[in-house]
Amino acid sequence: MASPLVSLDNFYSVIPAGGIGSRLWPLSRADAPKFLHDLTGSGQTLLRDTWDRLAPLSGEERVMVVTGRAHRAAVEKELPSLADHNVVLESEPKDSSAAIGLAAAILQKREPNVIIGSFAADHVIRDTRGFTRAVRQAVAAANAGYIATIGVTPTEPAIGFGYIHCAGPLEIDGAPGAVVVDSFVEKPDAATAQRYLDDGDYLWNAGMFISRADVLLEALGKSQPELLAGLLELADAWDTPARGAIVDKIWPGLTKIAIDYSVAEPAAKAGRLAVIPGDFDWDDVGDFASIAKLHSGGRKKDLAILGENARVLADASSGVVISQTNRLISLIGVTDIVVVDTPDALLVTTSANAQRVKAVVDALKLSGRTDIL
Amino acid sequence: MASPLVSLDNFYSVIPAGGIGSRLWPLSRADAPKFLHDLTGSGQTLLRDTWDRLAPLSGEERVMVVTGRAHRAAVEKELPSLADHNVVLESEPKDSSAAIGLAAAILQKREPNVIIGSFAADHVIRDTRGFTRAVRQAVAAANAGYIATIGVTPTEPAIGFGYIHCAGPLEIDGAPGAVVVDSFVEKPDAATAQRYLDDGDYLWNAGMFISRADVLLEALGKSQPELLAGLLELADAWDTPARGAIVDKIWPGLTKIAIDYSVAEPAAKAGRLAVIPGDFDWDDVGDFASIAKLHSGGRKKDLAILGENARVLADASSGVVISQTNRLISLIGVTDIVVVDTPDALLVTTSANAQRVKAVVDALKLSGRTDIL
Repeated sequence: MASPLVSLDNFYSVIPAGGIGSRLWPLSRADAPKFLHDLTGSGQTLLRDTWDRLAPLSGEERVMVVTGRAHRAAVEKELPSLADHNVVLESEPKDSSAAIGLAAAILQKREPNVIIGSFAADHVIRDTRGFTRAVRQAVAAANAGYIATIGVTPTEPAIGFGYIHCAGPLEIDGAPGAVVVDSFVEKPDAATAQRYLDDGDYLWNAGMFISRADVLLEALGKSQPELLAGLLELADAWDTPARGAIVDKIWPGLTKIAIDYSVAEPAAKAGRLAVIPGDFDWDDVGDFASIAKLHSGGRKKDLAILGENARVLADASSGVVISQTNRLISLIGVTDIVVVDTPDALLVTTSANAQRVKAVVDALKLSGRTDIL
Repeated sequence: MASPLVSLDNFYSVIPAGGIGSRLWPLSRADAPKFLHDLTGSGQTLLRDTWDRLAPLSGEERVMVVTGRAHRAAVEKELPSLADHNVVLESEPKDSSAAIGLAAAILQKREPNVIIGSFAADHVIRDTRGFTRAVRQAVAAANAGYIATIGVTPTEPAIGFGYIHCAGPLEIDGAPGAVVVDSFVEKPDAATAQRYLDDGDYLWNAGMFISRADVLLEALGKSQPELLAGLLELADAWDTPARGAIVDKIWPGLTKIAIDYSVAEPAAKAGRLAVIPGDFDWDDVGDFASIAKLHSGGRKKDLAILGENARVLADASSGVVISQTNRLISLIGVTDIVVVDTPDALLVTTSANAQRVKAVVDALKLSGRTDIL
């Protein structure tokens, strides 16, 4: 049953480009966050890959990026077609509800009927066609008044992702795959992840939200009325000379909360969250084990090498080497290894320990060595 | 039975400081050979440690160093009391028979009755007293006309060292421990090494030779008459203005052969090689596994850190980190690891693979990347 082609005329892409990617230290840093790296070997940054997936859907003039002030120059360099009025700069990070909510409020003021789709700047999707098909269905669900998300069909019992538990199917024109969401569940342990995979009613939460801006803001206002009020005040001033003063007044007090908690979970409870199962490949490239897997295609014996000037001499070794220097890196008899070589910091770990990298970053923060973060 | 105190009046220490230590790349380099590194954490180089063991035995004025021209400045900086006339510079490496034979020939010409003791510049011995006791006995054996060596009593079935097979005891005044050597045996496999250890008649060959210079030269002449002739011609000219011209004429043609083959093995066959069993600690620090062991005292769970400015953050890791940079090195969940961090090269391997480092060096040589060797 083919879905009729949904019009994307009202659709606006939003790319929150915020997270540093602590589990990818010392590659990702405060001044070189994950979205500004080429982790796929595509020859361009994850942010640019994201733009290239979205711009054909909404048009280049209809892509908004929400990012930190410090990253403005880098973002504009990566995305030369990004319109000035579509760059939303955060004076400090306030988590995803503020970032996406502000984009929604600004766009809704500019275009009352706008449908926004928010997609992380630092995820990897190679099957652009499959992704596009899912977005079209999500837009149809959004048109029908739902807050929509795209859940990725699991291919393995992953423990690094959150899951979406599906209830029954919905009947939405143009969204034949749409299913109502029962609940969101946190990252499971291995046994639970296997059960989710076997069950078939669970999808990976890829953090994609597609909704009419007014519907999203209404949902946000129900759970976070103060935050919504702040965002609306910001949006009112945004395209006026008063923006600077209002930002200074409002921004510091915005509540930090993930949109999963402020919007998605309450909407799921209310039966207003639709999910489109996506059959495309997807990875949030959350740690070095993901990168190794991404490059080896699952072949355990491979050694992935990233870095323009990487010089690696390897013997009986597997895993991933990421080089940001021109030093010769020699590996002998180390398997599933992770080596990240940067000018001021070196990391040596294994794929199995990849999730523990964040603990090092936390330790560095605690010891005040922020120069290296 | 205490040994009478042997006079060391005729004794001269010789330190051949030649080998690069390929298995310690990228720490050891052509321009920074093993003997110029502090591998024990003593705060000084192995060469200086060697000097400090020998100078009290022979007197500072009676220590000769044979080294490459490129290392002259570094050697003189390490050993400010080294006399000018005791620096023997090789224009190119010609192996140990030439190095030790030339020292013997020069010293024998200066002092016909001299006894020389040759000790590598890059071995580790902590029990200086035990070492000194063994040298005294070896000098007594040399006085009695033997070529003497000091063999180290094995403490484990090491496969990285050659062994000395002992025959019956000798009756030498001042050398109660002296035993006649039956044969030298090459590095054994693990089973053979265990058999040597159980047998009790095998000692580690520590490459120490103590002999009257004339006896050593006579033995060398029997197996390598051309080499001896060249060395004698060099020695005749050494303390004269003709030295430069003779070196240019003779040096390139000198036969490259280890003294083990030219002198020690033939002397053993002839029943003229005495060995003093040494009960002191000794290690040739031949690879990174040795360094790890040296620092952990055999405790597998320890992480040894070498390097003046080393900054290491380790979690659940063991092995050895050698840092020659001021980068932060972070290790997570890597055990028995070897990380050597230098400005232009990084090595990551494990203790079990330490012997394979030489293969990398060979590969670099073959590929012409000598800049990094």
